Amino acid sequence: MKILRVNMKEAGARWEPVSAEYEQLGGRALIAKLLLNEIPPDCDALGPHNKLIFTPGILGGAVVPTAGRLSVGAKSPLTKGIKEANAGGTGGDNLGKLGIKAIVVEGQGKPKRFFILVIDGDSAELVPAEDLLNTGTYATTDTLQERYGTNSTVICIGQAGEQLMTGAGISSTGEKDQRSNHAARGGLGAVMGSKGLKALVILKPKGKFEFKDEKLFRAASKAFAQELIQSPKLGTKGSQHLYGTASIVGAVNEMGSLPTKNFSEGQFEPSTELRGEKLRELVLAREGKIGTRCMPGCVIACRNLFADPTGKPVVGSVQYETIALVGSNLGLGKLDDVAEINYMCNDFGLDTIETGAALGVALEAGLAEFGDIDGILGLMKQIGEGTVLGRVLGCGAATTGRVLGVRRVPVALGQAMPGYDPRTLKGNGVTYATSPQGADHTAGNAFGARKEVNPLGTEGQKELSLKLQIIAAMLDSTGLCLFARPPIIANPQLMLDMINGIHGWGWTLEDYDRFNRDVLRTELEFNRRAGITQNDYRIPEYMREEPLPPHNAVFDVPDSDLDTIFDTL
Amino acid sequence: MKILRVNMKEAGARWEPVSAEYEQLGGRALIAKLLLNEIPPDCDALGPHNKLIFTPGILGGAVVPTAGRLSVGAKSPLTKGIKEANAGGTGGDNLGKLGIKAIVVEGQGKPKRFFILVIDGDSAELVPAEDLLNTGTYATTDTLQERYGTNSTVICIGQAGEQLMTGAGISSTGEKDQRSNHAARGGLGAVMGSKGLKALVILKPKGKFEFKDEKLFRAASKAFAQELIQSPKLGTKGSQHLYGTASIVGAVNEMGSLPTKNFSEGQFEPSTELRGEKLRELVLAREGKIGTRCMPGCVIACRNLFADPTGKPVVGSVQYETIALVGSNLGLGKLDDVAEINYMCNDFGLDTIETGAALGVALEAGLAEFGDIDGILGLMKQIGEGTVLGRVLGCGAATTGRVLGVRRVPVALGQAMPGYDPRTLKGNGVTYATSPQGADHTAGNAFGARKEVNPLGTEGQKELSLKLQIIAAMLDSTGLCLFARPPIIANPQLMLDMINGIHGWGWTLEDYDRFNRDVLRTELEFNRRAGITQNDYRIPEYMREEPLPPHNAVFDVPDSDLDTIFDTL
Repeated sequence: MKILRVNMKEAGARWEPVSAEYEQLGGRALIAKLLLNEIPPDCDALGPHNKLIFTPGILGGAVVPTAGRLSVGAKSPLTKGIKEANAGGTGGDNLGKLGIKAIVVEGQGKPKRFFILVIDGDSAELVPAEDLLNTGTYATTDTLQERYGTNSTVICIGQAGEQLMTGAGISSTGEKDQRSNHAARGGLGAVMGSKGLKALVILKPKGKFEFKDEKLFRAASKAFAQELIQSPKLGTKGSQHLYGTASIVGAVNEMGSLPTKNFSEGQFEPSTELRGEKLRELVLAREGKIGTRCMPGCVIACRNLFADPTGKPVVGSVQYETIALVGSNLGLGKLDDVAEINYMCNDFGLDTIETGAALGVALEAGLAEFGDIDGILGLMKQIGEGTVLGRVLGCGAATTGRVLGVRRVPVALGQAMPGYDPRTLKGNGVTYATSPQGADHTAGNAFGARKEVNPLGTEGQKELSLKLQIIAAMLDSTGLCLFARPPIIANPQLMLDMINGIHGWGWTLEDYDRFNRDVLRTELEFNRRAGITQNDYRIPEYMREEPLPPHNAVFDVPDSDLDTIFDTL
Repeated sequence: MKILRVNMKEAGARWEPVSAEYEQLGGRALIAKLLLNEIPPDCDALGPHNKLIFTPGILGGAVVPTAGRLSVGAKSPLTKGIKEANAGGTGGDNLGKLGIKAIVVEGQGKPKRFFILVIDGDSAELVPAEDLLNTGTYATTDTLQERYGTNSTVICIGQAGEQLMTGAGISSTGEKDQRSNHAARGGLGAVMGSKGLKALVILKPKGKFEFKDEKLFRAASKAFAQELIQSPKLGTKGSQHLYGTASIVGAVNEMGSLPTKNFSEGQFEPSTELRGEKLRELVLAREGKIGTRCMPGCVIACRNLFADPTGKPVVGSVQYETIALVGSNLGLGKLDDVAEINYMCNDFGLDTIETGAALGVALEAGLAEFGDIDGILGLMKQIGEGTVLGRVLGCGAATTGRVLGVRRVPVALGQAMPGYDPRTLKGNGVTYATSPQGADHTAGNAFGARKEVNPLGTEGQKELSLKLQIIAAMLDSTGLCLFARPPIIANPQLMLDMINGIHGWGWTLEDYDRFNRDVLRTELEFNRRAGITQNDYRIPEYMREEPLPPHNAVFDVPDSDLDTIFDTL
């Protein structure tokens, strides 16, 4: 395999071999090691010393079901710590097929001068992007696919990333006309903007993927696919396939953990209208799409393409986190409203979680009423236009709170919380307050373990979060989707056989465990060197003191648990 | 002496005796110890757990020349660390005369409900302030002096503090109709706003100040006054008296350290029009005031009252830091322009340093041209109106940089740098990058030592800064003005005799030295517990890499010097 080094100052790209240190790494694990080795952890995240990395997981290219995610990483301008965010689509698979271990974007050219990186087999070049400036991700993608082929992968930023808004993410295409798979979190879109990189285009690779032991791989991959298909939750009769991630709206609401009106309540009565069942009903009635996949080879297929009442496609895929953050969190009880905001976020290239949280803070400050969709769309429009208010919102919840003088801001490590209030799902609270990635729903999500550990209690949360954080590190480093967790936890040998079948590394269970733990260790060390301390990670003061209706819970896992969670790592 | 505890939640105030631990403390020293003892260092600076402290220095009330400054302290919403800012006027003297060691404002009531604390001898009560909301400091002061007597001290916030803008300061009156002595830095005005305290009114104390040994005090105080009067710089023929703090404009420009156009250059050609000589000439020609004092008993009298061409008073006192930050830093070469911005800052209750730096960043972002006074006044107006852009600017330079996507932001520890570029006055750079107070011109200013230690070299800066930081801690704890430094350094016994004459503590030189060092030790410990690390203190990356014309210097004092500066504390 090889690494592509892209120097934005000199507008040049060159290939280099993969050093021994990086050979058995990929995805989040590679990002952690490379950033720790190569950038000053205290550097300006939007300055020339930060590096932006695109890397497939270590299963990338082999078309393992659910395992083609593309990892993007850099020092985050939002958390000031290390960040990895990943997305579905065809990016991860194509990089794997091209034998590209990572694309490392370095340096910084003149401000507001943008390029497109075009990768066609062994060729990689930067071409000027002037004609695409101030263009949303949809139009950017259309133009580039027209130019380079509709089967090429386009990874790009919208206006938010160009303008260095720290709520900006990175959008990637999937199979056929699929759009908007977002590596959304941590402001990585702003880092891409700071590098002057508007888009990457990866032309569809030719040639065949090479396995070290194809037989070993096929057997394990097939067994893994079977496990997923036969899973009552994930298979073709399972809730995740039928309703997508929105299937959990009812359960989270029931728990009193559904972010409602800027995280001031945990239940939202109109959330019945936001549930997966309703989503499926609407999409089917309007002839949108449901049960499609975001990555080649996925057998779960939880994706949807939401359509408006006239049957016109609006946005795909409407997901749980978006429903929670721009739906109930803004007092909106209609999926049509959620879809409209979702489309705008996707087009401007914004993280829906960060943006939904920022809007929630803005509504608390009185910029519009909760539930006032016209007022909220007006605020969204300003982000696209880059007005000062739009820029404030586009910079995320923490900045919005500071500017508008609101102290009820749902962030940890400067990053907005996803769709689970930490007061009533305390395992997630522990993850938000300890993960080197900041508040993140894929860094160690305890929702699935709510029957195992009482989500309202403080007991066992630390142990649960640690376990989940280690698994999350594995998923994000292999390119696997969070949904694929159960079969791998039940039988890690499946994973080993797939890795060894592809790479021939001869990993044992010990190697695998060490690998997963090393990801966290490396990231924690990066953050330590970046000057981040326990206090930066903490759940905000108001959530530790103001009870959340209707359960009237506060986040009360003791600091001593938070501060010692990694002692056994 | 006694302490006044003001509980904003219950809208009540009560006196309590001074505990032994606080007896021999005052000003900055008392603030440090009290905050370390009483508030969680990781608390929300604008939340109920922060405490806002008003305290005279330990010389307060005795009318020592230049020593009546009022210290205000809290955890800063700007630096997230401990903060003390002090101001002239009659506040420090009156608190000392009333035997009030400190006023400690605690808790938090309902949002947007404001009170006035009225102190009349032994009586202290909170009265509603509804009629003064959204009112500038000038009108607030006029109303309150009309109500409580023109000889009462009014300490208040303007619109900026009410609206929790983190660039807000606290304004205090002086003798007669004197206005606008600002405890400006660190966003303490926002803390006052978060407490729901619009103003303090201290009615003129009756009765006589009690000395333990008046003879000892008088002898030392007289000798100290003589030293000041006879000093070539400070006396009636001295530059500080004749030209005020503006006397240094020429020298700082000569050094290439005058903040110019958002700290992008170190010299500003039109600065000849900003010099103290010019200021004096204009003020005298227009029949403004010059050579007046800001505190009872001051013999230096560096204050001015600037008037417009028609002779109408505009603002007092136009000072060096303001000239640098809202003058040359914004490309403005006219004192009339500086005075107009200064007036608006004072009225809205804003730190001119923080606001000038924020405006510089906004001009770099293109919101107006450098030198465009109309554009700049338009931006200022928005702060008073509380528009979103106004709020961004009012929150200071760091927030402005983040929102507008500018990375050349002259801050350390989140607080704007004063009027000395750290690249060409490296001793100040060391202070900015190590002081627990953040970038601050009174925390250890090396300008006066520029002939002692080469300001462009890296040698000796660490030692110089430490020495100056210890002295600054002494000045801020006794209530002395920075200008009073030379005689005390030359003869610390003068200080000891004054302290012992007032309090009878029998301090020795060792006690005095320990006291001064303890201030810094306590503050550093507070910041450590608040989770602040070396990386938070650092000079911004661009100043360590981009040479500053015309000397083309970068800030290159090694991190190892910064990290070890307090090893010998």
